[in-house]
Amino acid sequence: MSLFQDVYDVIVVGAGHAGCEAAAAAANMGSKTLLVTMNLQTIAQMSCNPAMGGIAKGQIVREIDAIGGYSGIVSDKTAIQFKMLNKSKGPAMWSPRVQSDRMRFAEEWRLRLEHTPNLDFYQEMVSGLLVDKNRITGVRTSLGIEIKAKSVVLTNGTFLNGLIHIGDKQFGGGRAGERASTGITEQLVDFGFDTGRMKTGTPPRVDGRSLDFSKMIIQPGDEIPEKFSYSKETSPLTHQRPCHMTYTSPEVHELLKEGFDRSPMFNGRIKSIGPRYCPSIEDKIHRFADKDRHQLFVEPEGWDTCEIYVNGFSTSLPEDVQFKALRSVVGFENVKFFRPGYAIEYDYFPPTQLTHTLETKLVDGLFFAGQINGTTGYEEAASQGLMAGMNAHLKVYEKDPFMLQRDEAYIGVLIDDLITKGTEEPYRMFTSRAEYRTLLRQDNADERLTPLSYKAGLASEERLMMMEEKREASDKLVKYFEETSILPEEVNDLLEERGSSPMKQSDKMFKVFSRPQIHLDDIKKFKKVAAYIEDNAIEKDVLEQAEIKVKYAGYIEKEKANADKLSRLENIKIPANFDYSKLKSLSYEAKEKLEKIRPVTISQASRISGVSPSDISVMLVYMGR
Amino acid sequence: MSLFQDVYDVIVVGAGHAGCEAAAAAANMGSKTLLVTMNLQTIAQMSCNPAMGGIAKGQIVREIDAIGGYSGIVSDKTAIQFKMLNKSKGPAMWSPRVQSDRMRFAEEWRLRLEHTPNLDFYQEMVSGLLVDKNRITGVRTSLGIEIKAKSVVLTNGTFLNGLIHIGDKQFGGGRAGERASTGITEQLVDFGFDTGRMKTGTPPRVDGRSLDFSKMIIQPGDEIPEKFSYSKETSPLTHQRPCHMTYTSPEVHELLKEGFDRSPMFNGRIKSIGPRYCPSIEDKIHRFADKDRHQLFVEPEGWDTCEIYVNGFSTSLPEDVQFKALRSVVGFENVKFFRPGYAIEYDYFPPTQLTHTLETKLVDGLFFAGQINGTTGYEEAASQGLMAGMNAHLKVYEKDPFMLQRDEAYIGVLIDDLITKGTEEPYRMFTSRAEYRTLLRQDNADERLTPLSYKAGLASEERLMMMEEKREASDKLVKYFEETSILPEEVNDLLEERGSSPMKQSDKMFKVFSRPQIHLDDIKKFKKVAAYIEDNAIEKDVLEQAEIKVKYAGYIEKEKANADKLSRLENIKIPANFDYSKLKSLSYEAKEKLEKIRPVTISQASRISGVSPSDISVMLVYMGR
Ligand SMILES: Cc1cc2nc3c(=O)[nH]c(=O)nc-3n(C[C@H](O)[C@H](O)[C@H](O)COP(=O)(O)OP(=O)(O)OC[C@H]3O[C@@H](n4cnc5c(N)ncnc54)[C@H](O)[C@@H]3O)c2cc1C
Ligand SMILES: Cc1cc2nc3c(=O)[nH]c(=O)nc-3n(C[C@H](O)[C@H](O)[C@H](O)COP(=O)(O)OP(=O)(O)OC[C@H]3O[C@@H](n4cnc5c(N)ncnc54)[C@H](O)[C@@H]3O)c2cc1C
Repeated sequence: MSLFQDVYDVIVVGAGHAGCEAAAAAANMGSKTLLVTMNLQTIAQMSCNPAMGGIAKGQIVREIDAIGGYSGIVSDKTAIQFKMLNKSKGPAMWSPRVQSDRMRFAEEWRLRLEHTPNLDFYQEMVSGLLVDKNRITGVRTSLGIEIKAKSVVLTNGTFLNGLIHIGDKQFGGGRAGERASTGITEQLVDFGFDTGRMKTGTPPRVDGRSLDFSKMIIQPGDEIPEKFSYSKETSPLTHQRPCHMTYTSPEVHELLKEGFDRSPMFNGRIKSIGPRYCPSIEDKIHRFADKDRHQLFVEPEGWDTCEIYVNGFSTSLPEDVQFKALRSVVGFENVKFFRPGYAIEYDYFPPTQLTHTLETKLVDGLFFAGQINGTTGYEEAASQGLMAGMNAHLKVYEKDPFMLQRDEAYIGVLIDDLITKGTEEPYRMFTSRAEYRTLLRQDNADERLTPLSYKAGLASEERLMMMEEKREASDKLVKYFEETSILPEEVNDLLEERGSSPMKQSDKMFKVFSRPQIHLDDIKKFKKVAAYIEDNAIEKDVLEQAEIKVKYAGYIEKEKANADKLSRLENIKIPANFDYSKLKSLSYEAKEKLEKIRPVTISQASRISGVSPSDISVMLVYMGR
Repeated sequence: MSLFQDVYDVIVVGAGHAGCEAAAAAANMGSKTLLVTMNLQTIAQMSCNPAMGGIAKGQIVREIDAIGGYSGIVSDKTAIQFKMLNKSKGPAMWSPRVQSDRMRFAEEWRLRLEHTPNLDFYQEMVSGLLVDKNRITGVRTSLGIEIKAKSVVLTNGTFLNGLIHIGDKQFGGGRAGERASTGITEQLVDFGFDTGRMKTGTPPRVDGRSLDFSKMIIQPGDEIPEKFSYSKETSPLTHQRPCHMTYTSPEVHELLKEGFDRSPMFNGRIKSIGPRYCPSIEDKIHRFADKDRHQLFVEPEGWDTCEIYVNGFSTSLPEDVQFKALRSVVGFENVKFFRPGYAIEYDYFPPTQLTHTLETKLVDGLFFAGQINGTTGYEEAASQGLMAGMNAHLKVYEKDPFMLQRDEAYIGVLIDDLITKGTEEPYRMFTSRAEYRTLLRQDNADERLTPLSYKAGLASEERLMMMEEKREASDKLVKYFEETSILPEEVNDLLEERGSSPMKQSDKMFKVFSRPQIHLDDIKKFKKVAAYIEDNAIEKDVLEQAEIKVKYAGYIEKEKANADKLSRLENIKIPANFDYSKLKSLSYEAKEKLEKIRPVTISQASRISGVSPSDISVMLVYMGR
């Protein structure tokens, strides 16, 4: 009698950030789901830094939350510090970030998954896939157990043939102290998949008791912390733990350079490409030779632990070099190591082999999410997991896929970039990757995505109602500003004080509020506004929404118009079996790329590198547009 | 610049129960200590059942606490259920036991160690020892780092060349999902150490959501829970989580037998010996063929998790057989597995190669503690760790060793058994192994051991004072009972009601209280006693102590007298270089064993199997006694 009797709707392989979101989404939508992972004690382990969010990544966490994933809630519940980054810039740039308690984060995820209906767990290594005529039918474990499923989501992270490097030493492993995973890559290559190697690194972990924090710059959390989740289930932190900052120095750089000849990155032992935007300290010294110092953030790993994550000091130099150099950093004179930094090389699958639902083009019902697709970062992984889990469910239940456009979500940008452009180096999200970032703000992810997710069957009705109430309230408030007039004598003192030209005659409040020098706090001081807010019991998030809608109305309108143009192109679908060989005037490169990627729309085709505007014209003409 | 600059006083290898206690003890006594372990995320991982204490083991936890170890405090803080086992028997048999929250247990240990002064941490595998002319000088890690130390405590548990078996499949590993440790055994064999293989097993973990608890027998915790630690730092549980019980059946047994030919235990693939008293379910069926059912305890793994430990169903049968059979158990009809049970084989070192301080005879300054010595069980491991850690410190600081006699502690019995008799099968503590179990009660471990540990430099003065206050108070109360008279008319009604013969004339309260039919609750009902208790604010533990001292006075006296006899023999020391070959009248077997074990006292010599009373006489005569 096999351990597994039934056919699962969805099997998720791996319980990192991608796997956890995938499993939760599929199960919450009603799929009979199994999460198989190598070690049930390491569910949602943060492999690298103990933090969630940050620039562009914080927006993604808000989007995951708006869609109905758990990353936001888990992050809120296990945060030790909250910061809204870029608060001095426009709201499109505001990016929430938390420091997390590493142990609590993993525990909260695990318990939350255990309380998710339809979700089973199994601890073992998956060593192969069951495929019948290009259709997935399940997985095979290292014990030889076959588990049947209608769809499978692979989220193996950095584990596939993982190889750890420290200086000139190397050994197999999926993460420090954990085994690598073998078998899957080889089988997928047999099926015709392309595979490549990437690498990523992590800094040493050190003993906080050996550091002199008095020599560093304290980095407290926000005075008024906010949170990720739109739900009422979590609340902002009432106390926080500070981080610290210090710097490397020319001396530190010289000491590090002593190890370059024994560095796997410089002596050619590691050939794969690392994350450009999360470079190792040796990379930074090498690439920015003129900079004589780099910031190091000294981040606690939890509420009570003395373990410290040295953010900015990722390295695979020999451990003695790491140590000697770190000892020369101010505040680290007596540092003790818990473990050295290291780099890891692993297999990934170029994501151009996927469709917008993250399903592979070669094997029906097989989805990939997370680091396996060549991305880096927890948020990137989690959001792909969510999308893959939803689409695996939708596919099994023969419903419409759930896809997000570039003007709807960072997640849309992420997936479109991956499958359209592929990636040669670990892909990380940035605000600059999004064309419509004034639309894709962290404050409105619920307005953007909760209705779509509700329609697809994941976001709850309660969430939808909450979002609608919030939107209505802020729209009403904006309308109030649009309709309510204000007299020069009421406002000119303020305007003068702020260096803004005085009003000559009565005007709408909206106009005054639009001026860059005037803030919500000023407006709130007007008696009638204060009364209106109080009478309508308007909450902070609604006020903030209204403020953004007023102050950025112009930008938002403009981006919406641009996005509409895009969406016209987006609406021109390319037939699935479109025969590019017939289009003689296409450039050779374009033809090759189009054949490979097989874009779904003209808009997607236009984003493929090597496809020029004239190639697009050729296609439009051919399609009779 | 090596990662490690200084010479440590004590390096502890491994952070299981043995390693954690060893590190804490050495550091708390003032040794500069380093704890090296393969994965800092798995400190104090409970490899098997989520429980501490039990018969004889609960006494050991109390002893560890009395000496100043952390196991009692950690167990109290992370318990989900408390039970005093054997409460219906005499107080010598009372044995505290808790169910633990597995994740919290590990976290609490880790944080507690982090807050221990003098203790450093390092994550890596130790692959070899540094030895200079039979003296330990440090360890070497898998990265080749040399860390110097004056003494080393090895606590590798089940990791040395660990080999996991499930049915006819086998693979290397130290624990499910963790790597094995290699290198150390081979090196120690080169130094001349004997080594052997042992095996142990663990049951499947299952999904509590798939069980029907209504068909099982509920097993709640005690109505008035107590706790392990004598300190005020912990308090008894205010709410608890219940366990459940169910049974195997002849049908289940038949299903299991179907897998016997594929069982590594029966087909000869596993040759090493498993724990007789923690047998696998297949062992039980095989050895007790006439029993048609066995108890299974269904134990939750924590407060919130749905993971369940199936206590009593340890097995290495093929996973499909495990599953099929467990599905036939009442309440388990729809069981889902988190992971199958398995057996593990590992290297151990016959403990006759150690002295009473747990130092090896072959390498000066090298200590062994825990499963590496052929024991099984967390408590056995933890107590050895504590003793090895203390003695490693004492040796480095050239102080007297800390050793416990057989009449002082279960820990004394454990170590004396190990080093004197050795063990061919995994050694587990039982009350029956102790000759003086009326002395070695769970309630008086503080009286027995705190003063000794205080003298040695571990137990705090505060603990000593607490213990002394408690002892004085109970002695005073006993004296009160001895001195206070009671009249027949005061007590005869009660005596009659209890079926005890009436008193003829006034007598001491002590006498009445001594009668088996009369309990503390009866005595407390006498007005003067109640007043005395209230006036002196006498607490529960003091009352209980006094009761035991009164009611078991006879037994205790008798055992003390016996123990004194032993300690006379114990005082006859055998010179370190005693030449047994000169004693022609010694039996051949005795001579061989005595040469190997080299007992320190005549008493120890008498406990070596194969050494007869007449051999002892020969020795006494030769030594001029
Ligand atoms: C050393 C290191 C350094 C990193 N540095 C950075 C950084 O600087 N910046 C950054 O943004 N990101 C960094 N990351 C990446 C970040 O950790 C990942 O992007 C993120 O964790 C990926 O999530 P995931 O879910 O795809 O995979 P992971 O979190 O790696 O999870 C993979 C899961 O799959 C399981 N698994 C794998 N194979 C199998 C199998 N065959 N069968 C069953 N289970 C399996 C594993 O046990 C694990 O649970 C680093 C990662 C590592 C390991
Ligand atoms: C599968 C299984 C079943 C068991 N069943 C039972 C049972 O039924 N009943 C029972 O009473 N007991 C059982 N036990 C035993 C119980 O778990 C042990 O007795 C107890 O945990 C031993 O404690 P320890 O400290 O000696 O070793 P462990 O708890 O095994 O800890 C060993 C530690 O050493 C570390 N380590 C090992 N080698 C190295 C190295 N070279 N370098 C650095 N670190 C290293 C490991 O990472 C780990 O932290 C079982 C154990 C296992 C694994």
